[in-house]
Amino acid sequence: MKIIFLTGNKDKFSEAVEIIPYLQQSDIDLTEIQSIDPKDVILHKLEEAKKHIKGNLIVEDTSLTLEGMNGLPGTLIKLFLKTIKNEGLVKIAKSFGNDKATAKVMIGYADEKGECKFFEGLIEGRIVKPRGDNGFGWDEIFEPQGMKKTFAEMTTEEKNKISMRKLAFQKLKDAIEG
Amino acid sequence: MKIIFLTGNKDKFSEAVEIIPYLQQSDIDLTEIQSIDPKDVILHKLEEAKKHIKGNLIVEDTSLTLEGMNGLPGTLIKLFLKTIKNEGLVKIAKSFGNDKATAKVMIGYADEKGECKFFEGLIEGRIVKPRGDNGFGWDEIFEPQGMKKTFAEMTTEEKNKISMRKLAFQKLKDAIEG
Repeated sequence: MKIIFLTGNKDKFSEAVEIIPYLQQSDIDLTEIQSIDPKDVILHKLEEAKKHIKGNLIVEDTSLTLEGMNGLPGTLIKLFLKTIKNEGLVKIAKSFGNDKATAKVMIGYADEKGECKFFEGLIEGRIVKPRGDNGFGWDEIFEPQGMKKTFAEMTTEEKNKISMRKLAFQKLKDAIEG
Repeated sequence: MKIIFLTGNKDKFSEAVEIIPYLQQSDIDLTEIQSIDPKDVILHKLEEAKKHIKGNLIVEDTSLTLEGMNGLPGTLIKLFLKTIKNEGLVKIAKSFGNDKATAKVMIGYADEKGECKFFEGLIEGRIVKPRGDNGFGWDEIFEPQGMKKTFAEMTTEEKNKISMRKLAFQKLKDAIEG
């Protein structure tokens, strides 16, 4: 079975292929729309991708939501990292007096018939001052609930065992393989 | 001369039509892409609009940038208002120890030949606690430089005389009418 994961992010791809070994990567450039609902962002990308690529397609959206920010940064996390960086996110969490955060991976899977299904992986945690240097993006400021390490303090193996990406791709795998 | 201003926001339209009386409004729904460059957002909307409407088209992007946030909220201001509201923006400005902000209106004007020109209106100011109840959006927390009133404390007439929208539409008008 051939499934194409549409992403330009090789870190995301390598986490995913650990779980579903027959995934293929395509780093076609897809438009990201402004919406705080990841399903909107994903559906728009899948529609665009279908014009260029045939097959079973996967689009993934990773979001980080600060409880105090009522949905932000959410799907906009990439633009936050580009501008105010992890340090800025830490400052904001502090100013809102709320360090709770949710990391979410939403996968949209469109099969060759065009049907689309969603699979979600969620992990609760809190925003802390940067610690660790493994990982990417906001890994260094996210400490999963019940853990004493940030994602960036874990080995890749440790992280992949518990991450929201693992949860989402596991659900997708179960659905595909029945 | 017929020019169509593509916007669903009637407040923006009524500010604009004060300056260019022969503007027409179309509130066709256009996709807003994730980018902190307003020109990207505008060009994408114009491309989409051209598939449905013929004529001289205007798309406008209003952004509010906090100096401390390095480009944010910028074009994402609508999503910030929807989630953390004006109170959240005030909190963030405070936590970054920087109340400076820039309000910008960028107009993309595509004539019937498809050529696109940009016109920009900029106004510097600072983020303050909400004051006043005229206006819309973030008017109540933006105090233009050298003024003692927020936009929301001004009459519509006062605001339209100095606003970044007025500046941008005046430039457009000068270009059109030569």
